[in-house]
Amino acid sequence: MSAPVSGESAGTPRPLRAVALGGGHGLQMSLAALRRVTTDITAVVTVADDGGSSGRLRRELGMLPPGDLRKALSALASERDSERVWARLFEHRFGGNGALAGHAVGNLVFAGLLEVLGDPIAVLDRACELLGVQGRVLPMSLEPLDMEAEVVGLDEDRDAVRTIRGQVAIASTPGRVKRVRLTAVNGQAHPPRAAPEAVRAVLDADVVLLGPGSWFTSVLPHLLVPELREALVTTTAQRIVVLNLVPQPGETADFSPEQHLDVIAEHAPKLRVDAVLADTDAVPTPDRLRAAAAELGAQTLLDRVAATTASGRHEPDALAASLTAALERRTDRWR
Amino acid sequence: MSAPVSGESAGTPRPLRAVALGGGHGLQMSLAALRRVTTDITAVVTVADDGGSSGRLRRELGMLPPGDLRKALSALASERDSERVWARLFEHRFGGNGALAGHAVGNLVFAGLLEVLGDPIAVLDRACELLGVQGRVLPMSLEPLDMEAEVVGLDEDRDAVRTIRGQVAIASTPGRVKRVRLTAVNGQAHPPRAAPEAVRAVLDADVVLLGPGSWFTSVLPHLLVPELREALVTTTAQRIVVLNLVPQPGETADFSPEQHLDVIAEHAPKLRVDAVLADTDAVPTPDRLRAAAAELGAQTLLDRVAATTASGRHEPDALAASLTAALERRTDRWR
Repeated sequence: MSAPVSGESAGTPRPLRAVALGGGHGLQMSLAALRRVTTDITAVVTVADDGGSSGRLRRELGMLPPGDLRKALSALASERDSERVWARLFEHRFGGNGALAGHAVGNLVFAGLLEVLGDPIAVLDRACELLGVQGRVLPMSLEPLDMEAEVVGLDEDRDAVRTIRGQVAIASTPGRVKRVRLTAVNGQAHPPRAAPEAVRAVLDADVVLLGPGSWFTSVLPHLLVPELREALVTTTAQRIVVLNLVPQPGETADFSPEQHLDVIAEHAPKLRVDAVLADTDAVPTPDRLRAAAAELGAQTLLDRVAATTASGRHEPDALAASLTAALERRTDRWR
Repeated sequence: MSAPVSGESAGTPRPLRAVALGGGHGLQMSLAALRRVTTDITAVVTVADDGGSSGRLRRELGMLPPGDLRKALSALASERDSERVWARLFEHRFGGNGALAGHAVGNLVFAGLLEVLGDPIAVLDRACELLGVQGRVLPMSLEPLDMEAEVVGLDEDRDAVRTIRGQVAIASTPGRVKRVRLTAVNGQAHPPRAAPEAVRAVLDADVVLLGPGSWFTSVLPHLLVPELREALVTTTAQRIVVLNLVPQPGETADFSPEQHLDVIAEHAPKLRVDAVLADTDAVPTPDRLRAAAAELGAQTLLDRVAATTASGRHEPDALAASLTAALERRTDRWR
């Protein structure tokens, strides 16, 4: 399971090649932490969002939802003043109550570039140039996807299963999500296809990060794209699962840390994991988590991952330190 | 009236410093021609547009209408592939029939940058960087302006004067425009203020171009901003008026070339002009044009300005050649 850094291990050391899979604020967190660990980062981003500015653009233009991609770009954007202005522009949302209200400007730029260039990968590479991103941002699929979830606890019969459709509806259901699946949009029956570049990135990685984030709607989707799941199963990269650092409202409100691992096993039975990272304070029953991790083949690292700044936001430094600890057995192989 | 290129005429020659005032496609034409003559170009652009994507943005966000500014940026954009994609993005318009339909992406980027940076000049300088513009694009005023026109020929009484409000309404009136004026928006009583950078550019120029373009709505507005009119009157630059190369529908459909000059004199009595450039085929009565030009102090140059390509678009090369001829008496002073 270790990453053979072929050839190069004997010659010039190269930076750790890291891939982070996720979406939303969780992915921003893992990317911010990875920036402190290496310079070679690829974000692989969910494309099933159907809410907010992204949802409106999907419905109006039939395009890949850009919001999570934009957030990943921002997390990896240069902090030099000359490029920072473009990251600020991308994150800026129009206010007021007109036709543009609520749209993030970066989403509109993405939409326009996509119509001009056609290829989402080319669009993202251009955006990376503009924002001075060190690394790459890739969609998990080249087409917009939809989510469905089997949810219980919505009826008087607590075991009755209902199908809930759409990422927003799933993320906010008061029921308990049992299982999610992705469907290609436009009623097409084929299973969702992975972006080939995303598959390649996972296969070529030294370390792959899954989580933190909204578990069913940002983390698990990557396991539901067959080619991407296969790549995660077969890659020689070290696989690290980062559990949520604070309890998440909504879809997993009453989920224990070990249940987060159980649903990974249920959705990708062949996936082995090297390490599970969790915040000490967020794990009431460490033995149970260790047992669930062992089922996946993983060691468990409990740490003060969720150091919180005065502003109430997580400090990526803490996660970066924990990641480094998890990688330590092998970092000599990279750099 | 000649431009003293102080100091530098004895030392290193510098490129001709040209300022083009206008809006819309006419300004794009003069900028495209100037690119063939010099590398030091400043566009000074009308900001009274109230139609299309610009009008919608004005109404929704209360901002400077970006459309004419965007067109000027495109006309001066780099033709290198790496920057060309941004110019293509700026000009791209969303299709369909949703909330974004018809918006040029560049207008939305301008709107977003304006909310982020606050200062339209900073926004335009950033856009110039992105598009690899050689030169500068400036608004004639830092605030959106409105137009009013006195129009006759709309009633049974052919001499009855009506006030028509808004650039689109004026540009498309079936009546005859007698006079236009600018008003600051939001009911403010003060006269429109010029962008200080635009005033400075006119004062520092070697040559200033007025026209071609929609005469009342793209060319004359510059004469209606007191500080800008004053700068045009006092600058030591050579002042060249370029008449429309083909008859314009709408506001000046039945205007003769000499009437175009008459309305300049009516709106800016103190303005002297060095040269009037017109297409030979568009001037049925050359003597009358020469007389009207002489009233402004100008020589008249009739030339094949409006060479038309197979696609029906003017060839900026023809205008560039005519401009060079008009400048020839003095180009030895520049380079």
